Amino acid sequence: MSSSSLKILAISGSLRESSFNSAALKTAEEIAGDSARFTFADLSGIPLYDQDLRDKGIPEAVEALQQQVLEADAILFSTPEYNYSVSGVLKNAIDWLSRVDPQPFADKPVAVMSASMSAFGGARAQYDLRRSLIYLDAHFVNKPEVMISFAHKKFDDSGALTDEDTRKFIGDLLKALVEWQQRLSAGTSD
Amino acid sequence: MSSSSLKILAISGSLRESSFNSAALKTAEEIAGDSARFTFADLSGIPLYDQDLRDKGIPEAVEALQQQVLEADAILFSTPEYNYSVSGVLKNAIDWLSRVDPQPFADKPVAVMSASMSAFGGARAQYDLRRSLIYLDAHFVNKPEVMISFAHKKFDDSGALTDEDTRKFIGDLLKALVEWQQRLSAGTSD
Amino acid sequence: MSSSSLKILAISGSLRESSFNSAALKTAEEIAGDSARFTFADLSGIPLYDQDLRDKGIPEAVEALQQQVLEADAILFSTPEYNYSVSGVLKNAIDWLSRVDPQPFADKPVAVMSASMSAFGGARAQYDLRRSLIYLDAHFVNKPEVMISFAHKKFDDSGALTDEDTRKFIGDLLKALVEWQQRLSAGTSD
Amino acid sequence: MSSSSLKILAISGSLRESSFNSAALKTAEEIAGDSARFTFADLSGIPLYDQDLRDKGIPEAVEALQQQVLEADAILFSTPEYNYSVSGVLKNAIDWLSRVDPQPFADKPVAVMSASMSAFGGARAQYDLRRSLIYLDAHFVNKPEVMISFAHKKFDDSGALTDEDTRKFIGDLLKALVEWQQRLSAGTSD
Repeated sequence: MSSSSLKILAISGSLRESSFNSAALKTAEEIAGDSARFTFADLSGIPLYDQDLRDKGIPEAVEALQQQVLEADAILFSTPEYNYSVSGVLKNAIDWLSRVDPQPFADKPVAVMSASMSAFGGARAQYDLRRSLIYLDAHFVNKPEVMISFAHKKFDDSGALTDEDTRKFIGDLLKALVEWQQRLSAGTSD
Repeated sequence: MSSSSLKILAISGSLRESSFNSAALKTAEEIAGDSARFTFADLSGIPLYDQDLRDKGIPEAVEALQQQVLEADAILFSTPEYNYSVSGVLKNAIDWLSRVDPQPFADKPVAVMSASMSAFGGARAQYDLRRSLIYLDAHFVNKPEVMISFAHKKFDDSGALTDEDTRKFIGDLLKALVEWQQRLSAGTSD
Repeated sequence: MSSSSLKILAISGSLRESSFNSAALKTAEEIAGDSARFTFADLSGIPLYDQDLRDKGIPEAVEALQQQVLEADAILFSTPEYNYSVSGVLKNAIDWLSRVDPQPFADKPVAVMSASMSAFGGARAQYDLRRSLIYLDAHFVNKPEVMISFAHKKFDDSGALTDEDTRKFIGDLLKALVEWQQRLSAGTSD
Repeated sequence: MSSSSLKILAISGSLRESSFNSAALKTAEEIAGDSARFTFADLSGIPLYDQDLRDKGIPEAVEALQQQVLEADAILFSTPEYNYSVSGVLKNAIDWLSRVDPQPFADKPVAVMSASMSAFGGARAQYDLRRSLIYLDAHFVNKPEVMISFAHKKFDDSGALTDEDTRKFIGDLLKALVEWQQRLSAGTSD
């Protein structure tokens, strides 16, 4: 498989249209250029998880997301930090995906970044996401840990990332994700 | 203030109608008898958090929840554990409540329990809830830590809690919450 | 009880002589002036926890620490962040203190700060400390959360804190700890 | 490389001679039989971490542990849960290993289990260990998560594991670790 065919699903934990996290994912797509094809998940239509609802069938928006995760070679999350954890919006989507079959995160290479206007850049949220995907058997890239602090000073009004250091970090994370995907994939075929 | 007037808001992290967590909260109400008046929050109408939506005003269901929290003397949570944390449903509600003014959890006495069908009873979820409410300035009861494991063996089909040990634990937690509320309240009035 | 008699035990999670965390605690003492009497714990003589050793009796250094905690009206921790948690040195001391009788942290008002040379200032370590003291029944101050990032730029070579903002944060935390101690103490006497 | 030559370093977070965690690691060695060669780390001689001490050189016990980690093909931890996290003893050893060069956990396949007399079997400690090794770049096996609850009922007085289910879980974890090591190793050689 040539790396040019790598399919990356980008999942933003924020629904805000001008979200820094969504913008960070778009920056990643731009940096990747021809080396990867990005798809962007849309969590806005996912209902609140309710097992009674689940028992009636998988909602359409959840099924579409499941399909996107299944088809991706790798997943790139970017999550805001709300109340020292991932957004409820993102957690709710994961709760749904943990109750569908086939379980789409199984054996999937995954990376995470976070952006926030605070000094910590979402540092506290990322570890909860890593922990939530253990049982679902995703394989996380360890490094670099990309935490975009003071995000409002690093993106311009159009959502373009103007901070060169952050741009480099995102590029490094993307490179690590691609290599991790290739390594896991090569290891599998043996 | 006589303790008979204590208003407790019960918040279940599960939307399922026969939820063990909702049933545990109803058991708490039953145990409390005349010593407290319970109100039950309903998270089913809370939309997914979206700052663009927030900027247009507080949704009605969020405002109603904010009001319930503000009017309560104490809060009793019961949360399932999904993917090693609180439910996205509960996290999403907290994300909303952290963006309204006045901030309703400020200085509020709070207790948490959890119920699940697993052997761990939601132990991993409770600490994330405690952490999420630090900045919002809630004051948690430390002990007892009520984690109802194998919940399906402890509640009957009507949702009645048949396990005597668990009944006692819930009673002890309720007592600890009432005393904590009185202590914080007495300390304030000095 | 006049607040001038308040006894605060300062516990640093770092053994380094010029530790920023130890320096932050000394700054707190200086800010407190006559309003509190500070004692400083010394963790350097605490052996690695070993239940076989415990079964032979409480080591002298552990007993001395237990006594200091018991005699204090309030505890002020300052911990470095190593590998995204509290230092093993501090965790080891807590492990010992959790196995002595009487359990000294029970019902004790506690505050925590952290200092590190990184951009995050130990943010990730503080929540683990809060969680570790739940069962031991300590009562933590919620706010302000004092995380001293880039500590090497805020203390001079003699260990004096030269950053005015940080100085103010430490003063605010100290004030919150004193008020929390008074509130819990007043609530108890009712 | 034939899997018979796999070198596994077993690291117990408990110093107690009859530790259930140390016994669980010995059980793993026994189950592995000829398929792996086990070495057992000894944390009892590791001093409390102190950067002043570090600046004078690496203590002998730390250097020996560093060497053991470097030489191992894979690491198997078993940790008790003290105060809802890994033991201070284990955390202190990791703090030392994070400050030596070369960093021995880098790119190392790792698995973790835990044993305790409580109902939770150390569930809360394992996630902190996973998080502490992210920056050190270890690669954890996701599943199965082996949490040996009520350990005193599962090991006999000689430290032999008599519970067949637990024996099977440990065997499954060992198998997952060996496969993970082979997969990462095959992926690397491409």
